Amino acid sequence: MKTLDRSISRLISLLERRNPEGIEELKGLYCKCGRAHVIGITGPPGAGKSCLVAALVREIRRRGKTVGVLAVDPSSPFSDGAILGDRARMTEFSGDNGVFIRSFSARGASGGLAPVINDAVDVLDAFGKEVIIVETVGVGQVEMDIAKIAHTVVLTLVPGYGDSLQAMKAGILEIGDILVVNKSDQPGADGAVNDLSFEMPVTYGGKEFQCANIKADQWGVPIAKVSALKGDGVEDLVTVIFEHLMFITERNIFTGICQKRRSRQFLDILTQQVRDRFLETLKTDRDLQKWINKIENLKLDPYSASEQVVDLVEKARILADNGTTPRNNR
Amino acid sequence: MKTLDRSISRLISLLERRNPEGIEELKGLYCKCGRAHVIGITGPPGAGKSCLVAALVREIRRRGKTVGVLAVDPSSPFSDGAILGDRARMTEFSGDNGVFIRSFSARGASGGLAPVINDAVDVLDAFGKEVIIVETVGVGQVEMDIAKIAHTVVLTLVPGYGDSLQAMKAGILEIGDILVVNKSDQPGADGAVNDLSFEMPVTYGGKEFQCANIKADQWGVPIAKVSALKGDGVEDLVTVIFEHLMFITERNIFTGICQKRRSRQFLDILTQQVRDRFLETLKTDRDLQKWINKIENLKLDPYSASEQVVDLVEKARILADNGTTPRNNR
Repeated sequence: MKTLDRSISRLISLLERRNPEGIEELKGLYCKCGRAHVIGITGPPGAGKSCLVAALVREIRRRGKTVGVLAVDPSSPFSDGAILGDRARMTEFSGDNGVFIRSFSARGASGGLAPVINDAVDVLDAFGKEVIIVETVGVGQVEMDIAKIAHTVVLTLVPGYGDSLQAMKAGILEIGDILVVNKSDQPGADGAVNDLSFEMPVTYGGKEFQCANIKADQWGVPIAKVSALKGDGVEDLVTVIFEHLMFITERNIFTGICQKRRSRQFLDILTQQVRDRFLETLKTDRDLQKWINKIENLKLDPYSASEQVVDLVEKARILADNGTTPRNNR
Repeated sequence: MKTLDRSISRLISLLERRNPEGIEELKGLYCKCGRAHVIGITGPPGAGKSCLVAALVREIRRRGKTVGVLAVDPSSPFSDGAILGDRARMTEFSGDNGVFIRSFSARGASGGLAPVINDAVDVLDAFGKEVIIVETVGVGQVEMDIAKIAHTVVLTLVPGYGDSLQAMKAGILEIGDILVVNKSDQPGADGAVNDLSFEMPVTYGGKEFQCANIKADQWGVPIAKVSALKGDGVEDLVTVIFEHLMFITERNIFTGICQKRRSRQFLDILTQQVRDRFLETLKTDRDLQKWINKIENLKLDPYSASEQVVDLVEKARILADNGTTPRNNR
């Protein structure tokens, strides 16, 4: 492994385990953050996302930019041959100092993957990666959170989802800044593009694309036809991705996304820490077992018990606020 | 829809939205809980879980027991034809008063699906369903949590996962009380069963099964070959499931699982409520915006900011504990 990659990898591993030394190291890196363009690649299983990511990395490297890839794979304990094959395909970049690749499994990640991915994005950003690609499977809650990390969200679909697409359109259209119909060589690709088109065509980089919808910021969501495997349409897709970056940078949306991500991250960390400390306190509390016993013996239901405990804590807080809370530090 | 089903469905919908009236109604139902046998069906996408669940419901109904099915589908915004088809297959039970079916999407469920599923299991239990089947996709963190709700976990696999199975064995074997190799008519089914066999065969209901491992409670995990589509092996599988119920009931493990689930549920609700109240307090706190501004302007990193806030809260707590905490209610 390349030397710089080894430092990045070591730090991310520390942060995955919420290691205090790792967090201290990260604190010193925030001042270097805020420059990278974060691209989220999402879509259903089987849409060829890993293959698309490999094609994107190839094209972005051709344009001279450095890339970091964070692949989030919640189903990884069951990773089958196809997924392993896609990962193997990534070894084509193993000799390239400008590419860093790392996979994450949702398994065992307490508190969800969002905090870990946030940290990993910051690490790659601080270490100078110009483009960071976050690849996620599906659009469950975890994946939605991860999509919020990205400046540009690319939603990847394949021909043949026609009927259900029709039904889910409203939900799907919200997610992406760019829609990709992958496997464009398969029958039904043009039909899928047509199914998704609801607005007048848009032109980016001198090329016309059909348009799915107009976002609140007036960005017209283009539908790019791509065969990631053959490389068809990938150049145009990267052009569109960078056009989106330009669009959001010129309108100060880029900075807005970074700031929103930062404050959301702060609230995430804060609630996580409050939760951890609260659970720690509870564990050492001799009274807690009494509550649990009552619940296990069905003398008290969990909702009523919880309300009673929270009320007790709340009362303690209110008493503290009436005079003794230290507010001078704020 | 059947009248009883409508009441159940209404209450579950209220609980999904954390509606206070729904929670009040649920509180009154806990006394009727603790009788249902909860079966978890988990496994990778494409293992034919929905089809297996339909076959199980058919066989369990043939034996005269009432059934509730809770299908958790985190990828549902992208549900394709196959999944919709499986759901449609469930309409075969729409005229049967002894079957209740409900699907959940992970989308939009704040705080994960585990709380909602826990509540739904309690509702079905209280309304007298004798068997409750919880079907989940994959084994991410959410799914692992849901597996903890079940008394009997059935892990569903298909032939052709050979290589990766080999690699993941340790992890996979922990999860299931019963392994199913589905699509037993496909080539490689016997090979898959052999790959998973690590112990001497076990006999349940007069039939011999190959054995994956021996659990801590001395239950030998059988490997059942099933073709859910054709119905082959389903009768034996249901026999094994009920043998497992007998095994854990005789050894008082059943009660233990119920009690553990209850106390885990209590801690989940408690931390959720602490988190919600804390966030509520923060939102009305004029000082919070100052912290967020500092973070957005990169004057403070989110970890340091979070630590400082938690320390402030902690100090308030300690001051409160030194004399003024009301402890008499406990």
